[in-house]
Amino acid sequence: MTTEPDTTARLLITCPDQPGIVAAVTTFLFQHGVNITELDQHSTDPEGGRFFLRLEFQTPHLDVPRAVLETAFREAVASRFTMDWRISYAADKPRMAVLVSKHDHALLELLWRWQRGELRVDIPVVISNHADLRESVERFGVRFEHVAIDAATHADAEARMRALLADRTDFIVLARYMRILSADFVAHYPHRIINIHHSFLPAFVGADPYQQAYTRGVKLIGATAHYVTSDLDQGPIIDQDTGRVSHRHEVPDLRRLGRDLERQVLARAVRWHVEDRVIVDGNKTIVFA
Amino acid sequence: MTTEPDTTARLLITCPDQPGIVAAVTTFLFQHGVNITELDQHSTDPEGGRFFLRLEFQTPHLDVPRAVLETAFREAVASRFTMDWRISYAADKPRMAVLVSKHDHALLELLWRWQRGELRVDIPVVISNHADLRESVERFGVRFEHVAIDAATHADAEARMRALLADRTDFIVLARYMRILSADFVAHYPHRIINIHHSFLPAFVGADPYQQAYTRGVKLIGATAHYVTSDLDQGPIIDQDTGRVSHRHEVPDLRRLGRDLERQVLARAVRWHVEDRVIVDGNKTIVFA
Amino acid sequence: MTTEPDTTARLLITCPDQPGIVAAVTTFLFQHGVNITELDQHSTDPEGGRFFLRLEFQTPHLDVPRAVLETAFREAVASRFTMDWRISYAADKPRMAVLVSKHDHALLELLWRWQRGELRVDIPVVISNHADLRESVERFGVRFEHVAIDAATHADAEARMRALLADRTDFIVLARYMRILSADFVAHYPHRIINIHHSFLPAFVGADPYQQAYTRGVKLIGATAHYVTSDLDQGPIIDQDTGRVSHRHEVPDLRRLGRDLERQVLARAVRWHVEDRVIVDGNKTIVFA
Amino acid sequence: MTTEPDTTARLLITCPDQPGIVAAVTTFLFQHGVNITELDQHSTDPEGGRFFLRLEFQTPHLDVPRAVLETAFREAVASRFTMDWRISYAADKPRMAVLVSKHDHALLELLWRWQRGELRVDIPVVISNHADLRESVERFGVRFEHVAIDAATHADAEARMRALLADRTDFIVLARYMRILSADFVAHYPHRIINIHHSFLPAFVGADPYQQAYTRGVKLIGATAHYVTSDLDQGPIIDQDTGRVSHRHEVPDLRRLGRDLERQVLARAVRWHVEDRVIVDGNKTIVFA
Repeated sequence: MTTEPDTTARLLITCPDQPGIVAAVTTFLFQHGVNITELDQHSTDPEGGRFFLRLEFQTPHLDVPRAVLETAFREAVASRFTMDWRISYAADKPRMAVLVSKHDHALLELLWRWQRGELRVDIPVVISNHADLRESVERFGVRFEHVAIDAATHADAEARMRALLADRTDFIVLARYMRILSADFVAHYPHRIINIHHSFLPAFVGADPYQQAYTRGVKLIGATAHYVTSDLDQGPIIDQDTGRVSHRHEVPDLRRLGRDLERQVLARAVRWHVEDRVIVDGNKTIVFA
Repeated sequence: MTTEPDTTARLLITCPDQPGIVAAVTTFLFQHGVNITELDQHSTDPEGGRFFLRLEFQTPHLDVPRAVLETAFREAVASRFTMDWRISYAADKPRMAVLVSKHDHALLELLWRWQRGELRVDIPVVISNHADLRESVERFGVRFEHVAIDAATHADAEARMRALLADRTDFIVLARYMRILSADFVAHYPHRIINIHHSFLPAFVGADPYQQAYTRGVKLIGATAHYVTSDLDQGPIIDQDTGRVSHRHEVPDLRRLGRDLERQVLARAVRWHVEDRVIVDGNKTIVFA
Repeated sequence: MTTEPDTTARLLITCPDQPGIVAAVTTFLFQHGVNITELDQHSTDPEGGRFFLRLEFQTPHLDVPRAVLETAFREAVASRFTMDWRISYAADKPRMAVLVSKHDHALLELLWRWQRGELRVDIPVVISNHADLRESVERFGVRFEHVAIDAATHADAEARMRALLADRTDFIVLARYMRILSADFVAHYPHRIINIHHSFLPAFVGADPYQQAYTRGVKLIGATAHYVTSDLDQGPIIDQDTGRVSHRHEVPDLRRLGRDLERQVLARAVRWHVEDRVIVDGNKTIVFA
Repeated sequence: MTTEPDTTARLLITCPDQPGIVAAVTTFLFQHGVNITELDQHSTDPEGGRFFLRLEFQTPHLDVPRAVLETAFREAVASRFTMDWRISYAADKPRMAVLVSKHDHALLELLWRWQRGELRVDIPVVISNHADLRESVERFGVRFEHVAIDAATHADAEARMRALLADRTDFIVLARYMRILSADFVAHYPHRIINIHHSFLPAFVGADPYQQAYTRGVKLIGATAHYVTSDLDQGPIIDQDTGRVSHRHEVPDLRRLGRDLERQVLARAVRWHVEDRVIVDGNKTIVFA
């Protein structure tokens, strides 16, 4: 589980469960000189359920080019089991764009981990609806774009963001981006937008969850990383965590303590996404962590 | 914080905040030969807020009888600061009744801790709407009463329970009691009924929270101990905790893991209540733990 | 991961790592009508390391008797990869003996979970060097034997314990058994004796770890479940956990809080052992939890 | 507990326990127009033990200058109870120097929190035995000094560090400073040097604790913030935390996961130190958090 070499590849599979899937996949890979280093599987029900598989393998002894391998896999294995599948290669870093507003903690946590090599991504752009964080971002050698947005200009602003992202973005992280994206925007990135919500969902959806938590008098606050869908705060949950609070903590204290939770939870979720450890199953996630 | 001797007493105060309260209270106690061993205070706002104080003290050198002390305190201190206050004595064990249905884990956890002296209470009766747990309870030398209850007999059954509890109950624990108590019943025990709800409230109120948690795909399950009010699952929260789950856990797994959380959270909340560490403030709690 | 049916079997493999192992094993099982429901693997190093595999499978469509399956597996697969392997069947409950002294919390936690079906074991006997817990044990319908032990009688006492255990014990749990077992005794149950130590090992080995923790002023206490070897408190660790304490907690408080950790950690370790989720690798464990 | 205003002051007291201390202190403060907003006390033993008190109060209605207040307190209260005491004022920010080597995570966490106002300190200088982190530090507008150090130059280097710190440092944080400070150096800052050790002390003292943890096969890793004494890794512990690991984590994974623990634990310990919440009692700490 240490930092993976550039020779790592990952095969992800979703298909109807039936006997023989693992045997067919692993035999195919073995015959092509591949060395499997991790294998995780999950079945919602061995009788008629959905089957999920994640394989990590090393490619130095691969006996054919990538494209040949993939064609052969499609014909020999995938079509037989009606698989939804893909192979990704660690050498091809995914491109992660970040949307942010004024709070910098979630953004800086990601930039920091990226800078020290913990997050194997390229970052083509950070977009914000405020100009405040330009210097913080450019300091890391990352492009920063300010796209002002209000009710009247919402459609135009999203169009501009779409233009900035197009062709150079594999997934998007909302690092405390405080505007609601349109359903149309979201639809262009299915299960490819990760949001950090500052509560233990499904408690306290919507605005100002720390104020909501304070009002209710909970003894734990939380943070939730989830894929964005057109239903606000309702998408598939990737990771969550909680931290203890007491009657001594007022709303600013909850915000301060919550920032630490948000940073940890978002960093973990993004890492798992980048390493292809998350598979969406309806409105839930399979996380092979 | 070790097991307290029978000479321990506790003074709890709620009043409008203003300067001089602690000086007045501690000077009064000092003048009566009392040795303060714990002191916790909280103010919602030093300017016009509510003030809460919990003092633990030792009585061996108390220079007057309890009744004299209390009269003197009322006249010398409490009336001046418009205090809502009470003194309790550890030697007077509170009487805890338990209501339970079929799940025994929360009940047995309490009986077990009680048997080994961790919970300083008397247990006059355990009441259940099923007969299943009679032997488990009587084994501990505790009285068990079966009060069947259904929609038609609800009022009669509650009346019978009230008769069983009357005059021998200081507070009630709902140790997974699966019937909803009437507002009338609840009103007789204001902030003296503790329920364990098997979710991280306010998420998943109502029936079968583990099924709700499974359907939503959360990555943590929780348990919440709270005082019962006439609003279902909305009363002041005393304690909460969460535990990590994954896509591998189905509903029976959540129930199994959740039992451990429920036992821990309920035991902690009951202990705090018994030691007078919980003060209700509107729909929240101050917990001097 | 829910309660497994009696048709569940588990194959555990340890062998030198090399390509093709998973393909060979899963192909073999597929050809015999077996449906794999869980698969976990681990390699210490793909080049020259050790490989570990745990497979859970369902046997209703198994096309040959157990003995035939096992012979075929040995010949077709195991010998080729120099495997150390075994298959266990959930229908054959392992027999768990418990050794205990005077503290009942770890013992009762196990008996409780066993009684409610969480622990799929038979319990042939509970042995104690004190008579105190006889009634607590017999109440569960479990045999209790008192084997007094002191320095002079140690060898005789262990001989008597060996006689009580012989032929009816698959593994032994030391549920706060306060005597040190001889190296000879331990040698009869390699990686089949589980101890709960009341500290976060390797901190505070030996006697009275809560007193040691108090003296050092740690801010967390812990508990550790491990396999017993002839080196006291040095065996392979199965599970650990910690809980927060403060300057307010004296030694009796640490003991009280520690009991909760001990119960949780031991119960988890025993459950994993019973479900064949633990493989020993030198002085460490692989836990496929 | 929210960000405190500049009018906050804190009184810390250590003295032999005896009745009447709190009454005397709070009465004195009340008579001088002070409004107490937090009060924490601890006694190691009401009969002959040591007593610790921390009071937070607001000074706007203070009726005398600071110096007069302190003289009056000494004469009226402190001398009577043989108190070791001091008053600090939130408006006087403590000056925190940082020593660091090559790992930047602990340092950056502190600089970050300082920049956003979470840590109310001034930072006169960051000193490192390597030049690597100059840019990272100066970016925050903080002075960076490189003081090379090796066995031959140790005494000279420490002298130079002492010169850099002198007269402008209230306390020092070792943010993963990998050289051992001389007993002489340490003696100049009693209980004013905070170190972050990357293990759950007292497990894994000394060099490379993550390697030690890996070798032992623990299931949790930890981090410990403590005051530095002349005994390596033996000083009074301020805070600790642990995180779960498994057989899948190799040493680089432990380091990566451990960094998150180190950042959290160190930030918490420094915050508590800055807010005068930590009182040293022998080789332990009282933390009024």
